[in-house]
Amino acid sequence: MENRLKPMDAEQLREYGHKMVDFIADYYKTIENFPVLSQVEPGYLRNLLPDSAPNQPDSFQHVLDDIQTKILPGVTHWQSPNYFAYYPSNSSVAGFLGEMLSAGLNIVGFSWMSSPAATELEMIVLDWLGKMLKLPEDFLSAGQGGGVIQGTASEAVLVVLLAARDKVLKAVGKGALGKLVVYASDQTHAALQKACQVGTTSSTAVDSLLALGKIAKSNGMWFHVDAAYAGSACVCPEFRHYIDGVEEADSFNMNAHKWFLTNFDCSALWVKDRRALVQALSTNPEYLKNKASQANMVVDYKDWQIPLGRRFRSLKLWMVLRLYGLENLQCYIRNHIKLAKHFEDLITQDSRFQVVTPRIFSLVCFRLLPSDDEHHGNKLNHELLDAVNSTGKVFISHTVLSGKYILRFAVGAPLTEEKHVNAAWKILQDKATALLGECLG
Amino acid sequence: MENRLKPMDAEQLREYGHKMVDFIADYYKTIENFPVLSQVEPGYLRNLLPDSAPNQPDSFQHVLDDIQTKILPGVTHWQSPNYFAYYPSNSSVAGFLGEMLSAGLNIVGFSWMSSPAATELEMIVLDWLGKMLKLPEDFLSAGQGGGVIQGTASEAVLVVLLAARDKVLKAVGKGALGKLVVYASDQTHAALQKACQVGTTSSTAVDSLLALGKIAKSNGMWFHVDAAYAGSACVCPEFRHYIDGVEEADSFNMNAHKWFLTNFDCSALWVKDRRALVQALSTNPEYLKNKASQANMVVDYKDWQIPLGRRFRSLKLWMVLRLYGLENLQCYIRNHIKLAKHFEDLITQDSRFQVVTPRIFSLVCFRLLPSDDEHHGNKLNHELLDAVNSTGKVFISHTVLSGKYILRFAVGAPLTEEKHVNAAWKILQDKATALLGECLG
Repeated sequence: MENRLKPMDAEQLREYGHKMVDFIADYYKTIENFPVLSQVEPGYLRNLLPDSAPNQPDSFQHVLDDIQTKILPGVTHWQSPNYFAYYPSNSSVAGFLGEMLSAGLNIVGFSWMSSPAATELEMIVLDWLGKMLKLPEDFLSAGQGGGVIQGTASEAVLVVLLAARDKVLKAVGKGALGKLVVYASDQTHAALQKACQVGTTSSTAVDSLLALGKIAKSNGMWFHVDAAYAGSACVCPEFRHYIDGVEEADSFNMNAHKWFLTNFDCSALWVKDRRALVQALSTNPEYLKNKASQANMVVDYKDWQIPLGRRFRSLKLWMVLRLYGLENLQCYIRNHIKLAKHFEDLITQDSRFQVVTPRIFSLVCFRLLPSDDEHHGNKLNHELLDAVNSTGKVFISHTVLSGKYILRFAVGAPLTEEKHVNAAWKILQDKATALLGECLG
Repeated sequence: MENRLKPMDAEQLREYGHKMVDFIADYYKTIENFPVLSQVEPGYLRNLLPDSAPNQPDSFQHVLDDIQTKILPGVTHWQSPNYFAYYPSNSSVAGFLGEMLSAGLNIVGFSWMSSPAATELEMIVLDWLGKMLKLPEDFLSAGQGGGVIQGTASEAVLVVLLAARDKVLKAVGKGALGKLVVYASDQTHAALQKACQVGTTSSTAVDSLLALGKIAKSNGMWFHVDAAYAGSACVCPEFRHYIDGVEEADSFNMNAHKWFLTNFDCSALWVKDRRALVQALSTNPEYLKNKASQANMVVDYKDWQIPLGRRFRSLKLWMVLRLYGLENLQCYIRNHIKLAKHFEDLITQDSRFQVVTPRIFSLVCFRLLPSDDEHHGNKLNHELLDAVNSTGKVFISHTVLSGKYILRFAVGAPLTEEKHVNAAWKILQDKATALLGECLG
């Protein structure tokens, strides 16, 4: 047993860890050399890897080589400066360091006792972020409210739904379960479809939180505001008005992992009445009982979420806030919005294209105008999307609004600069010229 | 704008990344110097940190200093060799490297297209692990089944419940929703309480999967086997019989993040009929549509889970399997079981103590025998637990079985050796002597 496996050896961690840091730093140095959208075919990896795990250890260098030659070709590079698809998923040096430390400590912070720092740092950092967003004090931990990090907006919405359901049922009786209704915009997050049996879906656009909030309040409803993407912009005073009326809300969430430099996953959720979460989600098995919890002296975040286990995610958000500071973060957001506005200006200068909806923050929705009927317009834009993305030089995505196939250009990758926006626009123009030429030819 | 924030700079990532690796390696070198169970008081951190985020950036060295002096004292050290509480949460060099790479790439693998390698590696690695566990071929991806990584066993059980619910409702009609029943052991995972409205909870102990599976099958029930902790041991041929009968199951899960060297989170779930998951959980919003998905050529893991977003977690499991290999992993499990048996032997040699339930795998349940009535026995063991844990030299936890307060000693931290087990036992004996002396005195 002399050569027994040492799965955790500090000096091996140091040696291999340094190599992995260099590998990742080199990846970022060369990230523009990869096709943004992976160009592999379905099933490509099956042929490159063995059918089963090895009996004996493989060398670390061999694994690194495989990552370079077999894994990276199958990666769609969300951190590329030429990535404009979906929404951004920011990585930053600070966020990366926080993830690394979290993985290194590898604690499971289900209760305060299981790692007090994990719970307390999360409470403090969500208070910090809440203050940056100028959330009402009711959402902060000093009163009856507080913040918590969920994995995704889906999970944030799900726990809020469960809390709202239990709160209403407590008031009107359990027999009413089948009569509960969730009102949401018709453009709401896909999570709602999974999270609950939606009774009625209203198509009310969320254009005034204040008005909606007052309606909700007068009807005894739980009012949740999902600002998963746009929330980040609200740290800038000039954009804060978009969530005016949040003081009427019972809960609010924004994803720091989208456009706020905090590596995935980190969805921040605040509630005004933390007891509502705890009453809906608390479990108290004997094997987790402890003095601090029984004495009600602490927050146990297991009672604010669906799973029992949780990672030490507040570290990365804390490091982002400290290593960059509020002013830099505001500057970061403003720069992306400026770049999006620049892209919008480029579109309006080319009469073949049309900006479809008013630009909000850093997302531009646009399309290539068809020369004839509407069906052709959809096909044309679909073809333009495929042509652009298959170059590997840029990645954009699409949606359909009122039957129209629309292209989405979301500025938000940390490395994106004006030259990348210009290059993307050049590709769009060139491919449009080619497509329109084919149509005419 | 010359000094605009560069939140992702390859050379800064390299410089700070190396420092963080050294910090973490040094942490592991000195991990035995910390109290295993954090000894801070509730609210300790609030006084040590400012009330709000800084406007200007802080230095990385300042943050590292704060981690050392303010965060680490509030950490309960799950990776300490003297950690024997709850269940283990393994960190390993390979698992850590995989987490680091996942954070570095920071992709969001909701669909195949959003990073083909993330989806395909997960399918392949779960096939590897399924083969190591000798799961029936129905659970592998070549047929109608396949594996998926969930965050926790709670999430694994929840998605399986939703799939089972929809499958049954499809057969018997939606009107039967209120009549559905979940049967589970009375010692089942806390997640079940959150995940569903449990109709009837049977106290049937899960002692024969084969018998249970046949009953379930003949009644048209979905049969799920949760081997979150014990599953890891089943990679050893001599322990595989504990899941004999899994061939009758519809789904099976084990947590690679507990006792299998894969950093948290990584809960592996296999199903025989992947369509059941997809039918219950699929969403298909326009903005995620793409050729590969529409042509049904690929797996989109967003349809196998509650949230939309997901991390590239297969990297760490892949690296664990490759860097250690099957034989080392078997050796790792066997060594912990040997250490647990050693601890059990120590207990049986001291007539003041009693092993309460037969040792299973690496968990020993025991208690200090009271000299008088049962109530005293519970108080005595509670006091023993507190006395032992407050030394900071060892961390164990407890449970209550049939009204008896029981101490749990779970061997499973990667750094634990025989000397740590012996030291823990010495502390238990000394504290028992002191407590029993007080009782007599």
